Amino acid sequence: MRNVSPETITDTFIAYAAEADDARLREVMFSLARHMHAFVKEVRLTHAEWHAGLAALTAAGEITNEARNEFTLFSDIFGISALVDMLHSSPGATSSSNLGPFHRPGAPELPNGGDLRKGQEGEPLVVVGQVTDTVGKPVPHALLDLWQTAGNGLYAVQDPEQPEMNYHAQLRCDAEGKFCFTTVKPLPYTLPYDGPAGVMLRALKRDAWRPSHLHLIVQAPGHVPVVSEIFPTDDEHLDRDAVFGVRADLLMEYRQGTDPTTLPAILAERDSLGADFWRVDLHLRMAPLPGSA
Amino acid sequence: MRNVSPETITDTFIAYAAEADDARLREVMFSLARHMHAFVKEVRLTHAEWHAGLAALTAAGEITNEARNEFTLFSDIFGISALVDMLHSSPGATSSSNLGPFHRPGAPELPNGGDLRKGQEGEPLVVVGQVTDTVGKPVPHALLDLWQTAGNGLYAVQDPEQPEMNYHAQLRCDAEGKFCFTTVKPLPYTLPYDGPAGVMLRALKRDAWRPSHLHLIVQAPGHVPVVSEIFPTDDEHLDRDAVFGVRADLLMEYRQGTDPTTLPAILAERDSLGADFWRVDLHLRMAPLPGSA
Repeated sequence: MRNVSPETITDTFIAYAAEADDARLREVMFSLARHMHAFVKEVRLTHAEWHAGLAALTAAGEITNEARNEFTLFSDIFGISALVDMLHSSPGATSSSNLGPFHRPGAPELPNGGDLRKGQEGEPLVVVGQVTDTVGKPVPHALLDLWQTAGNGLYAVQDPEQPEMNYHAQLRCDAEGKFCFTTVKPLPYTLPYDGPAGVMLRALKRDAWRPSHLHLIVQAPGHVPVVSEIFPTDDEHLDRDAVFGVRADLLMEYRQGTDPTTLPAILAERDSLGADFWRVDLHLRMAPLPGSA
Repeated sequence: MRNVSPETITDTFIAYAAEADDARLREVMFSLARHMHAFVKEVRLTHAEWHAGLAALTAAGEITNEARNEFTLFSDIFGISALVDMLHSSPGATSSSNLGPFHRPGAPELPNGGDLRKGQEGEPLVVVGQVTDTVGKPVPHALLDLWQTAGNGLYAVQDPEQPEMNYHAQLRCDAEGKFCFTTVKPLPYTLPYDGPAGVMLRALKRDAWRPSHLHLIVQAPGHVPVVSEIFPTDDEHLDRDAVFGVRADLLMEYRQGTDPTTLPAILAERDSLGADFWRVDLHLRMAPLPGSA
């Protein structure tokens, strides 16, 4: 193409890559080019703005390391991560939400009914729930991967005072998909905002806060895994989650408990909780794997 | 927003940033979010593809240093840099094109008619031209900033064998905007393709080649500066420029010279060139600065 113009550049991009072998790669890259070109034309992006964008990406590269990826953070605060999650949620199943950077594979096993709190600071919370399929039939022996902040608002990896894998656990549900455990209420926290993503949040007068949440992954044979997080209905940051993770079906009411005898018998802390605890009841729904019976 | 969905996420992004002070920032960021969301939805971007995109950005950060910016390279090969250039070309003036990473401020002065070649390898080329405004009136004493590859296809900064600022110069045109100098034919070259931008070019079966070109910046009081590059009509890479820099009005015919007496009298090498040289005639057009007489 010897006469590239704003009108012809997208077709030129497509023509230059017409011989690419991978049809899906062509589809994705052509769509990406089309939308980026449309963006630049729509706002008549200036050289100064283009330089500012490149400087933000360069700064993101500089602050990124093994423990922190600023590009993921940009994806999160632009709602791109949330959109990918939502597009691949299974209809009828618990919505997908942010995996986030704090999941750690190989968390220790917690027996059903077990205690994550182990007397640590924070407001005691009993989580009671069941895993079913999309029509309400129990999914037996589902495996829950659970992680959350400690009672000081920090994940174990952020806090040298916490034992390794504190508030990280894997729990096997019973034959009816039922589970329960004792923990503390997770706390809201801010994204790291000392890098270019923080510059963007401040310039847009946006919050860096995430509402408090309990992360979970649910896995069971024959079912699509669910990667999600559960939010309490009374969190003050629900309407401004910096990473767009809140969905209607992920909101759960934390109710004030007073009578431990209403708790499941297998709960290890049942007799030692006293009359001042929170309780939340979860109903997690899994879709059948495509092609499974 | 407690029920973010693929349908509501763009409006949610906009609502979260509605209080941002800078109207232009809102305009740019809202358009960017709208187009990125539309892209993700249009192709139903998968988690694996999202991870691959983040991995490419992370790798770009790792390979970027003071001498090489992989984000600029991605912008170039996506046609974004070219689009920004084209949108801000002045109507009637010589088209804008890629500034590129090889411009160096403070190049040494070359007298009008001077010699950049200094007996170095390469095919001798005489550049003869004039700077006018958009209606053909000469622009007196315009300042040309010139840079190009040496006869081995490398810029001075890429080649420790070359003197510093070799083939970099600033030349002041005469009172009629006329200029001439002796150089060598620039050579085509490839972008650096050992990083993630190279992975993209290969996956799309695209060239990393840029056609040969002479870079220039033209400046004169009362006129919009022109940042551009000139391509010879016979370059084999014209139709596949990796960075989309070619425009119809930037194509110039290199003609074989035989008679040095046809060259301007001020050309220092006029009597020593012999009968085997190339000649190119440039007409560079500048637009008046908005608001100037």
